[in-house]
Amino acid sequence: MDVVAIADPDTERAIPQCRKMIEKAYGTKKKVAEYTKGPEDYLNMLKRGDIDAVIIATPWEWHTPQAVACMKAGITPAVEVCGASDVQECWDLVNTSEATRIPVFAMENVCYRRDVMAVLNMARQGLFGELLHLQGGYQHDLRNVKFNDGKQIYGGGVEFGEKAISEARWRTNHSVHRNGDLYPTHGLGPVGTMIDLNRGNRLVSLTSVATKARGLHKYIVEGPNGGANHPNAKVEFKLGDIVSSLIKTTNGETIMLSHDTNLPRPYSLNFRVQGTNGLWMDDFDSIHIEGKSKPHTWEKTGDPKEADSYFAKYEHPLWAKYANDASGAGHGGMDWFVINSFIESIKRGTPTSWTYTISLPGTQSLR
Amino acid sequence: MDVVAIADPDTERAIPQCRKMIEKAYGTKKKVAEYTKGPEDYLNMLKRGDIDAVIIATPWEWHTPQAVACMKAGITPAVEVCGASDVQECWDLVNTSEATRIPVFAMENVCYRRDVMAVLNMARQGLFGELLHLQGGYQHDLRNVKFNDGKQIYGGGVEFGEKAISEARWRTNHSVHRNGDLYPTHGLGPVGTMIDLNRGNRLVSLTSVATKARGLHKYIVEGPNGGANHPNAKVEFKLGDIVSSLIKTTNGETIMLSHDTNLPRPYSLNFRVQGTNGLWMDDFDSIHIEGKSKPHTWEKTGDPKEADSYFAKYEHPLWAKYANDASGAGHGGMDWFVINSFIESIKRGTPTSWTYTISLPGTQSLR
Repeated sequence: MDVVAIADPDTERAIPQCRKMIEKAYGTKKKVAEYTKGPEDYLNMLKRGDIDAVIIATPWEWHTPQAVACMKAGITPAVEVCGASDVQECWDLVNTSEATRIPVFAMENVCYRRDVMAVLNMARQGLFGELLHLQGGYQHDLRNVKFNDGKQIYGGGVEFGEKAISEARWRTNHSVHRNGDLYPTHGLGPVGTMIDLNRGNRLVSLTSVATKARGLHKYIVEGPNGGANHPNAKVEFKLGDIVSSLIKTTNGETIMLSHDTNLPRPYSLNFRVQGTNGLWMDDFDSIHIEGKSKPHTWEKTGDPKEADSYFAKYEHPLWAKYANDASGAGHGGMDWFVINSFIESIKRGTPTSWTYTISLPGTQSLR
Repeated sequence: MDVVAIADPDTERAIPQCRKMIEKAYGTKKKVAEYTKGPEDYLNMLKRGDIDAVIIATPWEWHTPQAVACMKAGITPAVEVCGASDVQECWDLVNTSEATRIPVFAMENVCYRRDVMAVLNMARQGLFGELLHLQGGYQHDLRNVKFNDGKQIYGGGVEFGEKAISEARWRTNHSVHRNGDLYPTHGLGPVGTMIDLNRGNRLVSLTSVATKARGLHKYIVEGPNGGANHPNAKVEFKLGDIVSSLIKTTNGETIMLSHDTNLPRPYSLNFRVQGTNGLWMDDFDSIHIEGKSKPHTWEKTGDPKEADSYFAKYEHPLWAKYANDASGAGHGGMDWFVINSFIESIKRGTPTSWTYTISLPGTQSLR
């Protein structure tokens, strides 16, 4: 496995960052080609002919066009969360994948979170009985990600777009122009795996409802270096502060997803996995299993380092084997697994483990 | 205030229980008239002419016909949870109330739960900012309420209907024949008060989704004195084990309700009250308020007996005044408040505080 090229129009920040990472991994002698002549220069990179796979970690609006271009060039793309931004982009990914027979790997790292994989293992072993209801979401106070002062990455101001840097430069625009669950896969990915979504099971109906939009405007008015007279106080945000979605599957499960990124709150992906024998809730590390737990009473899932905890007993085999390798990687180690899964699939020529193009025959479930 | 009559066709259990309660409250000399000649004998009671109000604590299917009969007789009914069972019954209550100008008092005791009223007080004082998203529900493992052995009230067998006693005799049938949120007001009542529902605000859309039905059949097969060959193992239950509902209001809030009564789980009414400044969650006694809580971190709402807890600081004036009177009453004291509220309204001739017939002018919000 070798990194041969990088592409990014942002020569001020993104390219130097990539250089640093490559130097750290390969040493100072390593040279990689750089495609930095504007936002379309990545197309020239795809023409090189020596590329098997591309990791797409660009602003959201680039995910689908770049993934489609990769597939058309015979290259397998891995796409950061969240991939497609509308229904047409979903079809673009599926149609191109079916036409080219190249899968799209969704880099949904939460599928590999240590506790989530232990819960997957519990589900596979039947601890919850027959699964019935699942919840997930993205509940994360992103106000100082969506706004900064143009100097620091997080917060310090209420700027976004051209006057901001990093994610606030592009991500916040999605809150101005779109209303819906902008980031569904942190929740849907892991619970989808548990109920074999698109491996025999399928989503059949979905209802999304949004609250009014208040949080981002309030932050501009009250936030650091903001105010009622700040030019951004006139911006009308379309994104409702909390978006709730209810989904039904062919197998009769229900899924509830939450998107909640504009308000003060503790971080929570809102997981709940419930079946005929009991349930797990992410919040406050809670589990209840009939026959094991005292009736009507929560237990703690506990720390995987405590031998008699649920999380130790049901540690997923992948984590049991690779916890040391993953140690120190991003987001509590789960980024190691998602990258590793992608690279291994490419090296071995096997189908990627969790893909958008799940209609392709032969793809395998993360078990 | 005086109890003059009781009506119930169940002369074996209900009438003796009522007699005991009356004796305990008034002494042995107190005599009340008894209407026990079949399920329609209550109509004769309503003709007495000396009754101002009736408390309806009968099986659900009687709530609406009895409330309607009360109003037509010029008597104000108080109805136990849950009142109407379908849309036609909702209209029957509203139309009769509007025609007779008599309100229907919904005995939704959770509106008066001590922590819930403290949270109402927090909401009124602006602690959460502008309210955006509210959750509630009825998540209660009722399997040993829905089934018993015909001798004890709770559990011991998998009988329901005629072979069972108490609630299992009638309540379980609603799980056989109906699919939906059978018990929405424990959740909707309290959060509805917080967002002035039907006092300027209004529900505008609702989507309900149910999982498949598994829990009750499983209990019959695996439960006490049950089995695969038990006659009830052939019963097909319509009620999905978990029913989730998403509601939008005219003021732009969203409400999520859960109904979950067929599965092993800890009791939880699933409350969440969230606004632009923070949120409260019933589960694990959790609160986060911007400017008070550490960023991204939960605090405990605490015990009202701890002076510096949120629940002490925001104790609702009604609880501050009447906690001693309510002490020892049903369901942690809240039953005292709901009965008291009804009786006081009748005595004073003022509108009842939380009614179905909320379109009547002059009704007052629980503040």
